[in-house]
Amino acid sequence: MKMIIDAFGGDNAPKAILDGALQAKKAYGVDLLFTGDEKKIRSCAAENRFDLTGCEIAHAPGVIAMEDDPKAVLKQKADSSMAVGLALLAKGKGDAFVSAGSTGALVMGGTFIVKRIHGIRRCAIASVMPSDQGPFMLIDCGANVTCEPKFLCQFAAMGSIYMREILGVREPRVGLANIGVEETKGTPFVRDCYELLKQEPSIHFIGNAEVRDIPAGVCDVVVADGFTGNIILKMYEGVAGTLAANIKSMFKKNVLSMLGALCVKKGLDEFKSKMDYKQYGGAPLLGLQAPVIKAHGSSDARAFMNAVRQAKECCEKNVVGRIANNLAGEQTSDEPEKKDGMKS
Amino acid sequence: MKMIIDAFGGDNAPKAILDGALQAKKAYGVDLLFTGDEKKIRSCAAENRFDLTGCEIAHAPGVIAMEDDPKAVLKQKADSSMAVGLALLAKGKGDAFVSAGSTGALVMGGTFIVKRIHGIRRCAIASVMPSDQGPFMLIDCGANVTCEPKFLCQFAAMGSIYMREILGVREPRVGLANIGVEETKGTPFVRDCYELLKQEPSIHFIGNAEVRDIPAGVCDVVVADGFTGNIILKMYEGVAGTLAANIKSMFKKNVLSMLGALCVKKGLDEFKSKMDYKQYGGAPLLGLQAPVIKAHGSSDARAFMNAVRQAKECCEKNVVGRIANNLAGEQTSDEPEKKDGMKS
Repeated sequence: MKMIIDAFGGDNAPKAILDGALQAKKAYGVDLLFTGDEKKIRSCAAENRFDLTGCEIAHAPGVIAMEDDPKAVLKQKADSSMAVGLALLAKGKGDAFVSAGSTGALVMGGTFIVKRIHGIRRCAIASVMPSDQGPFMLIDCGANVTCEPKFLCQFAAMGSIYMREILGVREPRVGLANIGVEETKGTPFVRDCYELLKQEPSIHFIGNAEVRDIPAGVCDVVVADGFTGNIILKMYEGVAGTLAANIKSMFKKNVLSMLGALCVKKGLDEFKSKMDYKQYGGAPLLGLQAPVIKAHGSSDARAFMNAVRQAKECCEKNVVGRIANNLAGEQTSDEPEKKDGMKS
Repeated sequence: MKMIIDAFGGDNAPKAILDGALQAKKAYGVDLLFTGDEKKIRSCAAENRFDLTGCEIAHAPGVIAMEDDPKAVLKQKADSSMAVGLALLAKGKGDAFVSAGSTGALVMGGTFIVKRIHGIRRCAIASVMPSDQGPFMLIDCGANVTCEPKFLCQFAAMGSIYMREILGVREPRVGLANIGVEETKGTPFVRDCYELLKQEPSIHFIGNAEVRDIPAGVCDVVVADGFTGNIILKMYEGVAGTLAANIKSMFKKNVLSMLGALCVKKGLDEFKSKMDYKQYGGAPLLGLQAPVIKAHGSSDARAFMNAVRQAKECCEKNVVGRIANNLAGEQTSDEPEKKDGMKS
């Protein structure tokens, strides 16, 4: 199984990327095809004593910067490590693509180079996040700032497939992100989504997910438009980050507090590992014709290694094929469009 | 100065409400006018040895329940403690109204009984919340699920007046809640808000507030439509609550961990007090013709006491009058509507 790796995406590229991908090669037995400036890849490997034996490199001199217009991946920066990687994936030169680069460019490139599964209206960014009860998926996290209700039904179905196949949740509970549990809550758009989700036969819809309860683990798939999803994702990261920084500085204050940290070391470690998003890898772009994983921009080697593992699992579990099949079923059962498909 | 108190709002009514209001009477020298079932108020006071000397009671047999339709406050439940209190405020029988009851009913009753300041398009719920750098205001937190961009300009102006007058922030920085700092980010609605806020002369608009940075204290007033604001508020509460519960159980695990808690007691206390939203009182409903404060539904006596203090401060600092004056200025300078009022 060959993983195509964008060697020049993210804050810590190319070093952390090469490091993480090579660790994944060793641990999970995948083949690697790096895209990026070949000279720089080789010199970074030499400097850090990374062993590139058996790895392929597809030379791509350009880099997509975070401030670049996402559309650049299609034309002006068609020579970038990201664009070249996506094109190789589209041509079948590898089984999955992993990048820690610009999310916007990856969504744009994924949609127009790799292309969507036939019938999928929009691809979505799906983040696996920690809750008090284990991981849950938030979809869409920002690929589609404005959505139609139908998009959210597809997001919910894709998220359910992912949670079932990759994380082993038998019947993923889908909740619609909303400002209350009652059916009447939210904007007209959210209420329309509720009505459609209720009728979606391929998911286990449990109603509105009151946003306050999401971190406690109220459902397995939280579905939202990309704007709302991105707000939820970033508030999660922002609050957790601020609190964690405060707790850290509390423990580091003086000798006594450092002793205190020792006393709760085991608990702290458990807590950290429970809340560690890096263990779940990156965010898959669901709805594309081949697996594309967005690793966090600040990925270190370990996070990137997990993103490569995740890409491999997506291939093994045939997430793309299952999404296409689910859709095929839906399209048959959907005719005539206006049947009463409400769940009892 | 007379505070009208809804004795039957919130999870801990009437005991915590009476207790907190009476503590405020003692501490801040306010007069109290309770609304609610007089018999129950007197028997609760007798049971708990609360001294009602000098307090008035306006008998109101009904109670608005959390599950009641907010509109009930106007007709079917016009005899409720909330409706009676709002009517007394509207008639000038007191200077401010404080309730820990249903937010929806309070917004509805505030709008149609107390009524909006002339020219204010919508009243807003404004929460003062803790950040790493001190308190900030989030407005609107859920009164208006759908908004027009013009509403947000008024929210921003009202929030700025509150932060200046009540919390002493000299030139409150206003940020628009968004999924990135760039002007091009967000939904078409959010981008329209950006354009209008940029032209609003009475505020210090600093651009988009990247939601991830809000808990770190990136600005003093975060302005949002009520749906987005409510999501932000609830994710804040949800993440902080889940993390706090985990940390608490970490410290309570065994003798060693409890010793650890002792070692960091001072730091923990400082951290708790920094993150304690109760110190700021409740959420003012801004835009009404008289001060109305929504205390948290789960308010204990201390939180309610702080909400009464806050109501008193709103009266003293004439927040309502300042909002009306600001609006008067705006209306003059606004003509012609399409002038180039962009800030340099």
